[in-house]
Amino acid sequence: MQPTVIAPSILSANFARLGEEVDNVLAAGADWVHFDVMDNHYVPNLTIGPLVCEALRKHGVTAPIDVHLMVEPVDRIIPDFASAGASMISFHPEASRHVHRSIQLIKGAGCQAGLVLNPATPVEVLDYVLEDLDMVLLMSVNPGFGGQSFIPSALEKLRAVRAMIDARAPHVRLEIDGGVKVDNIAEIAAAGADTFVAGSAIFNAGDYADVVGRMKAAVAGVR
Amino acid sequence: MQPTVIAPSILSANFARLGEEVDNVLAAGADWVHFDVMDNHYVPNLTIGPLVCEALRKHGVTAPIDVHLMVEPVDRIIPDFASAGASMISFHPEASRHVHRSIQLIKGAGCQAGLVLNPATPVEVLDYVLEDLDMVLLMSVNPGFGGQSFIPSALEKLRAVRAMIDARAPHVRLEIDGGVKVDNIAEIAAAGADTFVAGSAIFNAGDYADVVGRMKAAVAGVR
Amino acid sequence: MQPTVIAPSILSANFARLGEEVDNVLAAGADWVHFDVMDNHYVPNLTIGPLVCEALRKHGVTAPIDVHLMVEPVDRIIPDFASAGASMISFHPEASRHVHRSIQLIKGAGCQAGLVLNPATPVEVLDYVLEDLDMVLLMSVNPGFGGQSFIPSALEKLRAVRAMIDARAPHVRLEIDGGVKVDNIAEIAAAGADTFVAGSAIFNAGDYADVVGRMKAAVAGVR
Amino acid sequence: MQPTVIAPSILSANFARLGEEVDNVLAAGADWVHFDVMDNHYVPNLTIGPLVCEALRKHGVTAPIDVHLMVEPVDRIIPDFASAGASMISFHPEASRHVHRSIQLIKGAGCQAGLVLNPATPVEVLDYVLEDLDMVLLMSVNPGFGGQSFIPSALEKLRAVRAMIDARAPHVRLEIDGGVKVDNIAEIAAAGADTFVAGSAIFNAGDYADVVGRMKAAVAGVR
Amino acid sequence: MQPTVIAPSILSANFARLGEEVDNVLAAGADWVHFDVMDNHYVPNLTIGPLVCEALRKHGVTAPIDVHLMVEPVDRIIPDFASAGASMISFHPEASRHVHRSIQLIKGAGCQAGLVLNPATPVEVLDYVLEDLDMVLLMSVNPGFGGQSFIPSALEKLRAVRAMIDARAPHVRLEIDGGVKVDNIAEIAAAGADTFVAGSAIFNAGDYADVVGRMKAAVAGVR
Amino acid sequence: MQPTVIAPSILSANFARLGEEVDNVLAAGADWVHFDVMDNHYVPNLTIGPLVCEALRKHGVTAPIDVHLMVEPVDRIIPDFASAGASMISFHPEASRHVHRSIQLIKGAGCQAGLVLNPATPVEVLDYVLEDLDMVLLMSVNPGFGGQSFIPSALEKLRAVRAMIDARAPHVRLEIDGGVKVDNIAEIAAAGADTFVAGSAIFNAGDYADVVGRMKAAVAGVR
Repeated sequence: MQPTVIAPSILSANFARLGEEVDNVLAAGADWVHFDVMDNHYVPNLTIGPLVCEALRKHGVTAPIDVHLMVEPVDRIIPDFASAGASMISFHPEASRHVHRSIQLIKGAGCQAGLVLNPATPVEVLDYVLEDLDMVLLMSVNPGFGGQSFIPSALEKLRAVRAMIDARAPHVRLEIDGGVKVDNIAEIAAAGADTFVAGSAIFNAGDYADVVGRMKAAVAGVR
Repeated sequence: MQPTVIAPSILSANFARLGEEVDNVLAAGADWVHFDVMDNHYVPNLTIGPLVCEALRKHGVTAPIDVHLMVEPVDRIIPDFASAGASMISFHPEASRHVHRSIQLIKGAGCQAGLVLNPATPVEVLDYVLEDLDMVLLMSVNPGFGGQSFIPSALEKLRAVRAMIDARAPHVRLEIDGGVKVDNIAEIAAAGADTFVAGSAIFNAGDYADVVGRMKAAVAGVR
Repeated sequence: MQPTVIAPSILSANFARLGEEVDNVLAAGADWVHFDVMDNHYVPNLTIGPLVCEALRKHGVTAPIDVHLMVEPVDRIIPDFASAGASMISFHPEASRHVHRSIQLIKGAGCQAGLVLNPATPVEVLDYVLEDLDMVLLMSVNPGFGGQSFIPSALEKLRAVRAMIDARAPHVRLEIDGGVKVDNIAEIAAAGADTFVAGSAIFNAGDYADVVGRMKAAVAGVR
Repeated sequence: MQPTVIAPSILSANFARLGEEVDNVLAAGADWVHFDVMDNHYVPNLTIGPLVCEALRKHGVTAPIDVHLMVEPVDRIIPDFASAGASMISFHPEASRHVHRSIQLIKGAGCQAGLVLNPATPVEVLDYVLEDLDMVLLMSVNPGFGGQSFIPSALEKLRAVRAMIDARAPHVRLEIDGGVKVDNIAEIAAAGADTFVAGSAIFNAGDYADVVGRMKAAVAGVR
Repeated sequence: MQPTVIAPSILSANFARLGEEVDNVLAAGADWVHFDVMDNHYVPNLTIGPLVCEALRKHGVTAPIDVHLMVEPVDRIIPDFASAGASMISFHPEASRHVHRSIQLIKGAGCQAGLVLNPATPVEVLDYVLEDLDMVLLMSVNPGFGGQSFIPSALEKLRAVRAMIDARAPHVRLEIDGGVKVDNIAEIAAAGADTFVAGSAIFNAGDYADVVGRMKAAVAGVR
Repeated sequence: MQPTVIAPSILSANFARLGEEVDNVLAAGADWVHFDVMDNHYVPNLTIGPLVCEALRKHGVTAPIDVHLMVEPVDRIIPDFASAGASMISFHPEASRHVHRSIQLIKGAGCQAGLVLNPATPVEVLDYVLEDLDMVLLMSVNPGFGGQSFIPSALEKLRAVRAMIDARAPHVRLEIDGGVKVDNIAEIAAAGADTFVAGSAIFNAGDYADVVGRMKAAVAGVR
């Protein structure tokens, strides 16, 4: 398993020239493309759907595309994203009546499956599905709302989920999303995350490679 | 009022280089940018939201952006699109409990307001709001479903709404969306449409200017 | 049938001493108590429910209580309002899947039944139920939103519904709600209304009797 | 087109021996099997679904099975009923956001398509889809509620829809459901119905053939 | 308390002659009738409702009828099933806003109450209601989806809930539903189940008594 | 922190003279005004909204107003109650998709924030938000349903939450609502509650001061 993954969220990219933006950030050392899907129901915003994902694949993007569904319900749109080239699809357990089934649906469509925990969601939602997952995504801000910084209690949750993963399912990645910056990524990695979503911290920087490089160096320092 | 408007639907454009696509189609003679918003609730698909609209404005697009909301409910997202640079915002009456209020909300945010009729929707929904509108959009396919051709009964509805507009509210544009092609646009114009959405017919053609030009010529032939 | 009814909306009364307010406005010549129920779903506000209605009856109010349900769905709460002392219960047709059934439910509970048309609602919703109704209520503002004035197209709708009532069901009252004031009530009455809701126009006035009296005089002038 | 169709509603049959009940009522002269599907959402009851339909086909029933969907939304379950052997599938327009599309979905699955009007639903819902339909079903009671008798205003609506069908789409059947009995079926047929659902009137009778025969004779008397 | 209960799910029976099927399976040694209710909302399927339950009682079935509600919300239909002859009614906690209240509603209607846990549902939902229940039902497949086999993590959950029951509420039955067969029932019983739902394993077998007998023998072997 | 708070629920007061009722109960020694908001969706009842809260402030009430939202969703109405003078706003975690965000919304509007646990809700919902809260409210009856008495398992939950608060967040108040009376308040206080809602126990008594006094004395006896 790749020890550290940096996954820039394209919500902060320039949508007028998205292919070029994604090419650039991957060339700068980013590992995955993080793809935030909002439906104006599960969260109060609407962003991008399968056709934008498909356009990136047609453009030539071969890196993993990491789709985070902030939609409700989730099952109908899963096959659309699988067809559009998603590599992994994550969803929120409260957005599906049949969490185990949604995981199987994602995996049956040939993608990796992730479960996302909101800042207030208890970790018990993982109790009977952790082994079936490829990834757990912890939100360190509230999804769909702008202008937030890293919520401190996410560190405690990272440690709790890291312990569960190490004990029961070491193949599972632990991703964090929200307020990740060069100056706090070491502390976040130390709490257990191995996969890091960053949006404005990367795309608002003049030099993508510099930010990605400093993030990776900071994480390497705590390993 | 501009006699004929061609409004290419950017759902058929290449989303990896959307700014360039829009620049090209406008340079080819298109008048507006038609912007189809789907939320996976009102229709079974999810497309693009306010940040893509905003990216086009930041890219330098100055043409009218004609936002068609296939979302439900509609009021929460209207201010977002107004802030993102929408010129007109249209919605489906069955997607708002308070149709008159949603129209006022759009106009109060500085945009033009349109009402969209699905293929089966009766024209009586216009009876008490026609004068308040800037545009009526008739769907000649079912929104949100692919691979459909122009529904013939839309011609009859075009004639009915054209008569209402001429009699009561001649300032209102009459737009048609679905299956419009070079070879049927004349018949559609003759039935009363003055504003024409076309997606694949334009973006799948090698030469945008050729298609737009032939569409405009065909419409001019029936005026 | 009482020729003219003035129904003050208690939403504009002082809720800290509601019994006294209602006593005063009835003593000032008002005929009914208009009772606006909002549920934060059908409209974006939440007001008052059955226990406030019941409190007015226990306080000694014997005038008709005219309950306007801005709630969705409607059937569950109808028996509660009937038990709480409502005299008539009106609802919006788009808030019930079974409009004919909801009317029967109201009448079966011993109340009079009304149907409410939003500003944009076509009058065809009355086609097959007008004879079953006791009242039609036309909204001349959008329910649940503050600070609006009388929507002019309501006059046209008043004339249309008045003609339907006169032709088919002369026992049906025609009520208007929204922006009714001393200086426009004559025009509204001339268009066909016989029952007038007024809120701030009455409760914000120093002298309730003066306002109610001038309203009744203005209506009498057009009869 | 078969001039008169009697379609017993199996909701009134004995579900412990449904195959035998259906065999008997068809042997008694009934033409179709009327199959009422309720989902506890569109109506406050839950009845039977596709597997009961399929069981009748496996049992050997070859008569048309006329499925009335009192469910909301409708599109997901349409293919299930088509696979289960339904001959025609009818739905309520307010239960589908995309009425034209749902009709196409039914026909694309190889079934005939019907639209159902509740007692209060205006006939304008048929304006732009009548030609696409195989059947219009008018409810003369409120669906999903027991113990009701024939609503008189349904006669007026039968006459209105009969006129529309004769003028525009004579291939469309006109079905009536609710409170149909031997002693009112002649009047109902005279108003324009050609297809008659009856439940308890048939299944509660000792002799199915006698009731069906008298119904057919009564209808024949008005042709 | 009866040590072992076999509850055949009638979803796998022949619905054309359901009374006879149920008679036969009970004569073959089955203890209860398991009755799966789906509403096309909580799960993507619609099956059978109260009138089918009532038909079984009228047919003469006296064995316990064990109703599993895969419906949402649950409270409205509980009294209907109690009147229709249900013996126990189970529901999913995420399908009721007021789980404690729904349990009281079931018990107040004279039935036994069960709570059902989906494969991914944590056992903490039982923490404050276990003593109020008569049964806990663990799903070992995802309800409402076909063609699944027993989910292995259900064994772990059986052991966890068995421990809770033994410690706090030994009167509570522990039922398992999904993929139970002759060849795995011993392992399932060893993990703590005492009540076993089986559908196709019984009804698809030629000899019901043989299957039921072998299931009971297998369970007896681990007691 | 005030050691003991008695918060009379005004649902049991006389709504015809609410200002006077509230003045009297505060004069009798009550500390807060408990304000129960029901929307006919989260619970099957509709009570009172922001304008009644605002009327109490305009009437001159300066005591804390403790708003319990039994509404779903919660975010839209939070600013309305903050503007109307609420001091603390509590909501149910299952009524918000974004519990952490709703807490921030309440605090950002200048109010104290509480989370409410229904009788069956596990305490794990507090795991990652307890430190952010000002209050935890445990329901000892099912909200929105009448005629219930104190649910005994609430004592166990009080002890569990009291331990969490003492260990992690001693600034958090622990409120109890449902069936609190003079004769059980000591036992409830002993289990850990410091804030007590009482409705009919106070307002149905002839002498408010006597009841409030005896409640406070009983609590003091266990401190």
